[in-house]
Amino acid sequence: MLVNEGKGQQSMSTKKNLPVIGVLGGTGKEGGGLAFRWAHRGYPVFLGSRSAEKAIEAAAAMNKELGIDRVRGGSNREAAAAAEIAVLSVPYAAQRTTIMEVQDALKGKILVDVTVPLMPPKVNRVQLPDNGSAVEAIQKLLGADVHVVSAFQNVSAHHLKDLSHVTECDVLVCSDDPVASDEVIKLVHAVGLRGWNGGVLANSIVAEGLTSVLIALNQRYKVPSAGIRITGIPDAKVM
Amino acid sequence: MLVNEGKGQQSMSTKKNLPVIGVLGGTGKEGGGLAFRWAHRGYPVFLGSRSAEKAIEAAAAMNKELGIDRVRGGSNREAAAAAEIAVLSVPYAAQRTTIMEVQDALKGKILVDVTVPLMPPKVNRVQLPDNGSAVEAIQKLLGADVHVVSAFQNVSAHHLKDLSHVTECDVLVCSDDPVASDEVIKLVHAVGLRGWNGGVLANSIVAEGLTSVLIALNQRYKVPSAGIRITGIPDAKVM
Repeated sequence: MLVNEGKGQQSMSTKKNLPVIGVLGGTGKEGGGLAFRWAHRGYPVFLGSRSAEKAIEAAAAMNKELGIDRVRGGSNREAAAAAEIAVLSVPYAAQRTTIMEVQDALKGKILVDVTVPLMPPKVNRVQLPDNGSAVEAIQKLLGADVHVVSAFQNVSAHHLKDLSHVTECDVLVCSDDPVASDEVIKLVHAVGLRGWNGGVLANSIVAEGLTSVLIALNQRYKVPSAGIRITGIPDAKVM
Repeated sequence: MLVNEGKGQQSMSTKKNLPVIGVLGGTGKEGGGLAFRWAHRGYPVFLGSRSAEKAIEAAAAMNKELGIDRVRGGSNREAAAAAEIAVLSVPYAAQRTTIMEVQDALKGKILVDVTVPLMPPKVNRVQLPDNGSAVEAIQKLLGADVHVVSAFQNVSAHHLKDLSHVTECDVLVCSDDPVASDEVIKLVHAVGLRGWNGGVLANSIVAEGLTSVLIALNQRYKVPSAGIRITGIPDAKVM
């Protein structure tokens, strides 16, 4: 079954053909959890943070836990430069400034944007920025040279570091570049989740807004992490 | 199990305590399918249509199929007047004009809006009207006297008339009136689906947009009707 494919199979050597993933905001819970799962599956990972020191420490801790030297750390700029695929996982308030700091290092690359436009205190209410999706604004800012892909907005960070935990949440992947979407769907599978090509980048509105709906469900039904599953598509049709 | 509760149990007499459901656009595929399932479960139903004649014919056909006289038909105005709970199931282009025709008959009632803002030809792309949700515009138009609830946007009309078909799609129910949401969740269960209180009416953006994402998935993976399931909430917590 797809979601468990390779579960627990840790590659002892970093695979040569896997791209370097640079995670901006890689010391956060979501970014750090994804980074850990990718490193565990053999991807070389570079953790970025506003504080390079914090990222270096976090990388050392991950390497210790993995028992292999596969994760490096540094500033967000260094992570963007080292990345073959960059992942942005920062709070919404820091999304734009982080991108502006690193944009010249992203040219020609895939940028996976994990940002959710949550506006405290009403995080259980969908509040879209300028009435559009947050990631579309980033694509406009970066221009067509960067292949922006939206993904992972609905995955609770809670259990990502627990490799034995099966997260019951599918990932919608949206982009105006279908080839980039396919690459990111591979990264979704690598963390043990099911990823679906949800169409153009504008469709990311749904994934971004859905996080607020899931928070509303968590509150209403007193559960820690409601999620979604896509139904009606046989596993055999995936990738 | 909730979704199959009472499946196949047709009440031979219309239950006295169930509200009359008036379906505006009740001769359409989605509205007609929902109406048929409600009538089958004992709800008195009034089908409305722009053509009263067509609705009367459709009601007669349903009664024949059900083997009991439980469905009436007439104009959309008559359906709104007869309704204790009104359901709006018309194409997006007709949403506003239909509501304006019947608005005085809706005062104090629940209006379940099933409308999806699909804008052909790009139905696989989320295109929100005036960058908000379609149902919020309807709530503004009707004012606080009408309890507007958004639901059923993601349910494929395909199999609604086939009572033995188990549709694998949950229903997000959004409203600024939580009591009205609870009433509508009962109607969701009555058609054999799982309904979830997705929070305030603004959150309907997700359900409305999700239909375009599901159409994108149908096209990408060559399936007839992708859907969603909410995960992480035990059945026991529902209602």
